[in-house]
Amino acid sequence: MTSDKNFILKGNICYSEDAHTLRTVEQGFLICQNGKCAGVFHSIPQQFQDFLLIDCNDKLIIPGLIDLHIHAPQYSFRGLSMDLELLDWLNTNTFPEEAKYGDLEYAKKAYQIFAEAMKRSGTTRACIFATIHGPATELLMDLMEETGLKTMVGKVNMDRNSPDYLCESGAQASEAETILWLSKTRGKYQNVTPILTPRFIPSCTDDLMERLGRLKRKYKLPVQSHLSENISEVEWVKRLCPSTGCYGEAYDQFGMFGGEEKTVMAHCVFSSEQEIELIKKRGVYIAHCPQSNTNLASGIAPMRTYLDLKLNAGLGTDVAGGSGESIFRAMADAISVSKLRWRLVDSSLKPVTIEEAFYLGTLGGGSFFGKAGSFLEGYEFDALILDDSTLSHPQPLSTRERLERFIYLSDDRHIAGKYVDGKRIF
Amino acid sequence: MTSDKNFILKGNICYSEDAHTLRTVEQGFLICQNGKCAGVFHSIPQQFQDFLLIDCNDKLIIPGLIDLHIHAPQYSFRGLSMDLELLDWLNTNTFPEEAKYGDLEYAKKAYQIFAEAMKRSGTTRACIFATIHGPATELLMDLMEETGLKTMVGKVNMDRNSPDYLCESGAQASEAETILWLSKTRGKYQNVTPILTPRFIPSCTDDLMERLGRLKRKYKLPVQSHLSENISEVEWVKRLCPSTGCYGEAYDQFGMFGGEEKTVMAHCVFSSEQEIELIKKRGVYIAHCPQSNTNLASGIAPMRTYLDLKLNAGLGTDVAGGSGESIFRAMADAISVSKLRWRLVDSSLKPVTIEEAFYLGTLGGGSFFGKAGSFLEGYEFDALILDDSTLSHPQPLSTRERLERFIYLSDDRHIAGKYVDGKRIF
Repeated sequence: MTSDKNFILKGNICYSEDAHTLRTVEQGFLICQNGKCAGVFHSIPQQFQDFLLIDCNDKLIIPGLIDLHIHAPQYSFRGLSMDLELLDWLNTNTFPEEAKYGDLEYAKKAYQIFAEAMKRSGTTRACIFATIHGPATELLMDLMEETGLKTMVGKVNMDRNSPDYLCESGAQASEAETILWLSKTRGKYQNVTPILTPRFIPSCTDDLMERLGRLKRKYKLPVQSHLSENISEVEWVKRLCPSTGCYGEAYDQFGMFGGEEKTVMAHCVFSSEQEIELIKKRGVYIAHCPQSNTNLASGIAPMRTYLDLKLNAGLGTDVAGGSGESIFRAMADAISVSKLRWRLVDSSLKPVTIEEAFYLGTLGGGSFFGKAGSFLEGYEFDALILDDSTLSHPQPLSTRERLERFIYLSDDRHIAGKYVDGKRIF
Repeated sequence: MTSDKNFILKGNICYSEDAHTLRTVEQGFLICQNGKCAGVFHSIPQQFQDFLLIDCNDKLIIPGLIDLHIHAPQYSFRGLSMDLELLDWLNTNTFPEEAKYGDLEYAKKAYQIFAEAMKRSGTTRACIFATIHGPATELLMDLMEETGLKTMVGKVNMDRNSPDYLCESGAQASEAETILWLSKTRGKYQNVTPILTPRFIPSCTDDLMERLGRLKRKYKLPVQSHLSENISEVEWVKRLCPSTGCYGEAYDQFGMFGGEEKTVMAHCVFSSEQEIELIKKRGVYIAHCPQSNTNLASGIAPMRTYLDLKLNAGLGTDVAGGSGESIFRAMADAISVSKLRWRLVDSSLKPVTIEEAFYLGTLGGGSFFGKAGSFLEGYEFDALILDDSTLSHPQPLSTRERLERFIYLSDDRHIAGKYVDGKRIF
């Protein structure tokens, strides 16, 4: 029975059972058996009595956080030039920076910073955009493998409406580079898998999307992209794809919108009723990125609607639309922007609750990776140990109150330990 | 010429000259002479050659930050119960907590935490609400004095529409307690001065406001309060004061709205045209508290309007409506909520720029304290030394870019030094 993947964490345990139910167990026992959760108990059950007991004392223990949308090459300019809307921001800030990743030396310097930050963060699983460059994307995957985090990383596809210096030379070339990248990275890693990543409809010709759709089916690959983020972008897609009923259909017509393999779409700020129906039908995941939608003046996604419809949804930091990699911050922002939406846009849609925000950042996004983001039995053992002892207060606080405070007040200093798949990361 | 208040800081200096002009001097020299700024130079002028030179190397040097609105007793529940609107939040969270400050033991425990956090923060000057309790307010002033920060602290007045356990027994009693508190604290400190603090119109009878107006004129005291924060609150004030044309007039009729002595009003989210005119006429300061206005689902103040009208304005954290004491965060939030306002409410009002947000958090609020919040000649020498070396990046950054990043990404770890009035705090 002894194994380094058989152990027990003792502490104040919090996890989502579903979107509305946060379970807290004070001084409870969280069992890890062969890298999977074997449940949360008030005392140690007989069959686990010989497991190593790790006492986290008064600390909080929660599931690892899930980032459904982050751009690794944009980490270098987080917190910079936050004064533009999406399409101008892409042309002024993003594309010139992403072009630098053709240079492997630069890519190494920048991606090391990103990988180190992700390792130190509360995130245990993430969907990551790289750039159009196959070699730099493989390098990023090598670095992410070393962190121990479970990630899906995508070489970006772009063959139209992009600056010359960041545009692949046609659909065939883009496909060929993608196949080469897949041949080098599929099955190479224990922790990292490739994910197909057309940047967004405006950047990809129909020919390219058709080819990517075939690759998706051939290799059974998941897909990540952007959807209905910004008003100008949505109008642009309408002009580019006049025959599709909604932006989502522009992906769906090529089989690049959920179905058998999972798809995650960032934003969905301006999804029409028709699009929302298609998202539900195809089981597409929504990566809600509240800070990015604010920083790029996009708007506020109707998360109350998506939660009520029980759509698949989680949170994304969307660095560098979002300025940092903290999913705790994304939880707080999901709540606060939903309050502004309630006040300023539609008072029939109630703000997101703390239970729902925590769910989105853990179990909600976690199911994109299978059984992840909770301490329910059989789930992957991803856990954070949180030390809030330096967040001083004069009054007694319940475990739930401590968790709420942590979401608003913590930073990486307060993350005392992290496990992914039963392995200790730090 | 040698004195501990005569010295030179060398580093990358940033400060506002006005609301739109951010001056940056790389490897410049900031002169402190007798605790006042004697200017920023590219090389050391002859007359300062014998001043002690403190080399901050590659660090940034900026003016100290100004918090125009913060509630000391609410620091204990920052980041908690963020799911209510203002009036419910006051009754459920705020009033029960504030009542505890009748107990000096509790007050000491809680205010020590607050004072320590303020000392470590980027704030050098602040307008602080205490509670209705005179002795606890004096204790808070004692603790703030020790921090070395320049603060105005107010015993709160409340004699109506408040729970029994947090309501003074009539206007006369409230006035008497205020006079007693003033007699103990006026002139007692080097760094702390009293400020009159009627909580807001709904909490204060006309009789009490009349008495406070007299105290204001007699002792030439500044005033702080709340104005037009929330729709329900504004409607309530209309019902309470049917004869006044706007909420601001309800203060003004008692001489409690600017004029010879300064007044700062928090929020101004829903100020009418008439109220805005009165604010301008009386020179009243607006404390813009973007995070609080978001957390309490109040709305978004039209800062573009206020900036264009050149009203007196600065930033407030409004703990615990805001979850923390960082004015850097308030700068970032001022920008981001202005973008949402532009997108969702009124596209004719352009978002707040980084220059304007920095101005609001330094020089804009600083003038409430006299010549503070800038490195212009003759200004009080309040300075922060910022170490962004751990905020890794792969590319070269200008001083202005480093400042913008700092606003979005920093926390108290990155504040390497702080001076107030020429004295080093840490």
